Amino acid sequence: MEKNGIIEQVREEVFPSDKAAEKPLGKYCDHTVLRAYTTRETVKRFCEEAVRYGAASVCVNPVHVAYVHELLRGTGLYTCTVIGFPLGANRSCVKAMEAALAVEDGADEVDMVMNIGALREKDYELVRRDIAGVVAAAAGRAKVKVIIETCYLTDREIVAASLLCQQAGADYVKTSTGFGTDGARERDVRLIRQTVGDAMKIKASTNINTREDAERMIAAGADRLGTSRTPQIVTGDAKAHSASMDNQPPKQDC
Amino acid sequence: MEKNGIIEQVREEVFPSDKAAEKPLGKYCDHTVLRAYTTRETVKRFCEEAVRYGAASVCVNPVHVAYVHELLRGTGLYTCTVIGFPLGANRSCVKAMEAALAVEDGADEVDMVMNIGALREKDYELVRRDIAGVVAAAAGRAKVKVIIETCYLTDREIVAASLLCQQAGADYVKTSTGFGTDGARERDVRLIRQTVGDAMKIKASTNINTREDAERMIAAGADRLGTSRTPQIVTGDAKAHSASMDNQPPKQDC
Repeated sequence: MEKNGIIEQVREEVFPSDKAAEKPLGKYCDHTVLRAYTTRETVKRFCEEAVRYGAASVCVNPVHVAYVHELLRGTGLYTCTVIGFPLGANRSCVKAMEAALAVEDGADEVDMVMNIGALREKDYELVRRDIAGVVAAAAGRAKVKVIIETCYLTDREIVAASLLCQQAGADYVKTSTGFGTDGARERDVRLIRQTVGDAMKIKASTNINTREDAERMIAAGADRLGTSRTPQIVTGDAKAHSASMDNQPPKQDC
Repeated sequence: MEKNGIIEQVREEVFPSDKAAEKPLGKYCDHTVLRAYTTRETVKRFCEEAVRYGAASVCVNPVHVAYVHELLRGTGLYTCTVIGFPLGANRSCVKAMEAALAVEDGADEVDMVMNIGALREKDYELVRRDIAGVVAAAAGRAKVKVIIETCYLTDREIVAASLLCQQAGADYVKTSTGFGTDGARERDVRLIRQTVGDAMKIKASTNINTREDAERMIAAGADRLGTSRTPQIVTGDAKAHSASMDNQPPKQDC
């Protein structure tokens, strides 16, 4: 008992992030801006916000990876991007190439979208190879999260998708793209956790806008959260003004 | 006058599609199925429908191009796909590679999404090179349509985007992805036509569900229509049952 006590103490010293209770809420957040019309100016504001509120990463489209990598240099925050996003219906070699280029541009984490149609057709070999191609392209230099788009899947399909992610060597199962018909649900996060146990991490994403949303998802088993509302989550002020609120489609000039 | 009469007659014989009034409504339609959860079974139904109603093409995600090319063999219908879809925020070389692979898989037409953020930043050189890369990858073997996502652009930006499409050697300006905040608008189609004159064709897409919608867009200047409702457009029966209505997200099994 005493020995275990020492081991736990040293473990917390060496791997402080293992102690979930002490992990600040910001460190769960991938501060995310993926709208088609996003400019570099907006990306910069998201980076500043992510640093200020202590996010885990900034998650952007591939065209912005090199810029974010540069902006975040020395901050300890990760650069995260999306691959085959948001439909997942690109050829596997295109996803792998997109991932390899993103890593070259400085991405520390790549969130790929699974081939959802193939999963529904039970073409598991295709789904697995699609994921494994991105894992290989990341080559141990970036973590791989796989978005399975839970809103389009039955429970059986969520279990199958999670097992395939694990088998293909991905690091995280991620729930949603934000372009589907629904976002992260606690029940889905719990089902993924039951399926993969401690073998994988889970990223819950979409519709996580307040501290309460974040805490519910973490309690359900999420290790990371995809959100554009990191300031609101960290401060607990749901009405705080932030960059995501200003990132709206431009108005017509006529 | 008599000579011109002969020339016009022969022209109609040689290029019957030049006479717009005689072009059947179906031949304006790219029969489209791009949902993330689409299965091969659904793709097959769309192909059968496209043949039955005389569409111009079937438009699918890259993972389905080879299958559609096979299904449409000998029908005279084109295989169409999407590149960098729907956000357009992929690196140029990824878009070019995706286009080259699609052409190899049998795509006759590729609908790429412009780098919308770069256009808004007035980084015209980047936008032009992004398009030119796909045009080069298509290598004259496929027509290139460029989706400028008009719902996110001011009028000035629509004009700039259209000019860049023309300068980069694309064949069509296309209005919308279906994943933005709005679809094709007559005023936008007219503005694109005013900008490019007869130098380019125009594809109006999204929210074109009935024969009336189709006729309004054609009157505004559209040469092609992106729609999942080709049967309704061709028959004039807005309530006709079709494959798009059955292609809904699957239900939970619990």
